[in-house]
Amino acid sequence: MSDHDPLSGSVLMGRLDELAHATSEPGVLTRLTLTPAHREAAKLVSAWMREAGMSVRIDRIGNVVGRYEGATRDAPALLVGSHIDTVRNAGRFDGNLGVVMGIAAVADLARRGCVLSHAVEVIAFGDEEGLRFRTTLTGSRAVAGVFNPSSLADVDADGVTRAQALADFGAPRGDVAEEARDPAHVLGYIEAHIEQGPVLEDRELPVGVVTAINGATRAEVQVRGVAGHAGTLPMHMRHDPLSAAAEMILAIEARARSEADLVATVGTISIPKGAVNVVPGEVRFTLDLRSPVDSARNAARADLEGIMKGIAKSRSVETTLRVTYEAPATPCDPALQARLSASVAHFGAAPFHLPSGAGHDALAFRGRWPVAMLFVRCAGGVSHNNDEYASPQDIELASRILTHFIEGFGQGA
Amino acid sequence: MSDHDPLSGSVLMGRLDELAHATSEPGVLTRLTLTPAHREAAKLVSAWMREAGMSVRIDRIGNVVGRYEGATRDAPALLVGSHIDTVRNAGRFDGNLGVVMGIAAVADLARRGCVLSHAVEVIAFGDEEGLRFRTTLTGSRAVAGVFNPSSLADVDADGVTRAQALADFGAPRGDVAEEARDPAHVLGYIEAHIEQGPVLEDRELPVGVVTAINGATRAEVQVRGVAGHAGTLPMHMRHDPLSAAAEMILAIEARARSEADLVATVGTISIPKGAVNVVPGEVRFTLDLRSPVDSARNAARADLEGIMKGIAKSRSVETTLRVTYEAPATPCDPALQARLSASVAHFGAAPFHLPSGAGHDALAFRGRWPVAMLFVRCAGGVSHNNDEYASPQDIELASRILTHFIEGFGQGA
Repeated sequence: MSDHDPLSGSVLMGRLDELAHATSEPGVLTRLTLTPAHREAAKLVSAWMREAGMSVRIDRIGNVVGRYEGATRDAPALLVGSHIDTVRNAGRFDGNLGVVMGIAAVADLARRGCVLSHAVEVIAFGDEEGLRFRTTLTGSRAVAGVFNPSSLADVDADGVTRAQALADFGAPRGDVAEEARDPAHVLGYIEAHIEQGPVLEDRELPVGVVTAINGATRAEVQVRGVAGHAGTLPMHMRHDPLSAAAEMILAIEARARSEADLVATVGTISIPKGAVNVVPGEVRFTLDLRSPVDSARNAARADLEGIMKGIAKSRSVETTLRVTYEAPATPCDPALQARLSASVAHFGAAPFHLPSGAGHDALAFRGRWPVAMLFVRCAGGVSHNNDEYASPQDIELASRILTHFIEGFGQGA
Repeated sequence: MSDHDPLSGSVLMGRLDELAHATSEPGVLTRLTLTPAHREAAKLVSAWMREAGMSVRIDRIGNVVGRYEGATRDAPALLVGSHIDTVRNAGRFDGNLGVVMGIAAVADLARRGCVLSHAVEVIAFGDEEGLRFRTTLTGSRAVAGVFNPSSLADVDADGVTRAQALADFGAPRGDVAEEARDPAHVLGYIEAHIEQGPVLEDRELPVGVVTAINGATRAEVQVRGVAGHAGTLPMHMRHDPLSAAAEMILAIEARARSEADLVATVGTISIPKGAVNVVPGEVRFTLDLRSPVDSARNAARADLEGIMKGIAKSRSVETTLRVTYEAPATPCDPALQARLSASVAHFGAAPFHLPSGAGHDALAFRGRWPVAMLFVRCAGGVSHNNDEYASPQDIELASRILTHFIEGFGQGA
């Protein structure tokens, strides 16, 4: 290591840059799961883990697992993780930051000779983005004990199965279910990650304590009216589903605005068979509803269904809402949030709480063991492209907070 | 003729049925301009014209022109017309009805030995729908003297030019510009046509007197905001162009509803790069604005541009409106409207006035000579498909009104 302090912002930025060279496309960062680029990144991460004082293995589903033993052998472990697979044309920080920070925290503990009452395992998950195969979170699901064996038969665009890709990657053969951790041996899971949103920047805060990973409901809304000739159908005789949809879109926005942490998005809209000179006969749009609190999300959905039916009725059109995806919220553990807030405050930062609108590996651990997440401010809320950025100062502060949290973890509630 | 009365509804319906057999697709009516089906229809129409006592010719642009001489040779003519080309999978009435009615009116005059002070020319135009070549109304434009010679070079989907198609059709060679009529020899133009809208049916009226063929403005509206992650971007930080577009769509509807005879339609809307989980960055929609009065249409457009800019400003998004098509209204001649209303009233029907939202061959005669149109009630306002329907009773009444109008035309204002 070129610097004496593994938590220094410049050291961490250097590692993120180095890791970004593990890519399938020169010039941009593209590292889909179980590809040669992923293997290259896993090797680098393994080397850094060993250097930090950890024993390292690749597990049966392709995670890189580094273990820093506690005072007693087989002590229960605090898991610290994030992922090293990326989207196409990705940023350097998404996922990779949390892995690099976890390794640095252990390196700092080891450098200072700290042996904790608990073990620390840093895990570089390898399948968070889900671009190569249809399913996702296989790495964290295996650790959680909720791995679905059928995902070994998932096939990528070239016809390669996940099972074959795992073999090519060099993952040891064997039953993936064996990777399941006994919750009695896991104290909890903490993940540091860039926010991927603009809230911390807007509030001029370097870090935030996550309250929950939002639950989500996605739906397709259909509004059916009566198509007609744009020139010959008088306004008062129209049953225009687009006007109804416009009212619905504004009602969706108003409902989400009325409640903190609730977000609602209409991201696609179309008029099948639409033409400039035809009064629409049908409109379709999607709804994406997210909240850290399931009951709040469900109440909003019920309200909106009622509001949309009312709008449709008042305009003599018909509407249906079909739920296409539903995921419950993953609340972060209140005790871990309190500990993390204390570590944030320890470094003089304001312990600000916010939900996570994006999904993370922590989702897989819902109901298995306590989870916590530390968000790091990112520029403009931008993620999933080359403009993704977090400053060395924020990264250094976040790393010191994470290390403090890990170090203090065994020392009573 | 199987019936003694050429104006009888059953005779006219029989002719429409017979004409509908001239099609390119057995079982449905498809008769694109200058195709063999069009030629077959032109032959049938020519025969009916001759039988009615007219001299007949195919002109250089493919119109079928029948002339019923007045009391003096070369007397100025009242033109009576519509078109015999159709859309794909068309109804039997659109266009064809006006031609069949015009021929029947002359047949009735001839049968009764009526020689008028003016001539009557029935013209079956052949290029109103514009499906085969890019341009349209070439038949009526040639008669109006506003034919654009470049449209002879128009090419259909098979690479056939209009010039070649005219030769194949059997149109006489020669300069199409020669078909231009001297306005001094034309008294006016009258066209009977199904309404293609639901107004007459809604008011339980068999016919209507057209006030104008609506002018139209078509525009593409673009609203640009800032794209974002549907989960991580809080509501209060969004610049969502779809919400702005929704307000605009409702404002467009409200503006059109505020004024009789103004219609405004948003017929297409899209979110480029839209996805269920992405806050839209850009929305595009089309606007179709029509009115029988140009100043009303232009005022509405100016109002809407201001309203849309205000909505965009209030939401910190940007909007542009690009006009893609603009056509002035073609007012029907007030004196001809009055004459036609008198003929309607003569048969005990209410002389109801309404604008035409759809375009017609009469558009080509704007500013050349007076035009008038008689609309016939059609079922459900349906047109351009096999469900298009007008009743024999309405058709007979409309034919008697048209004949009365033609017969009375020479007899002073």
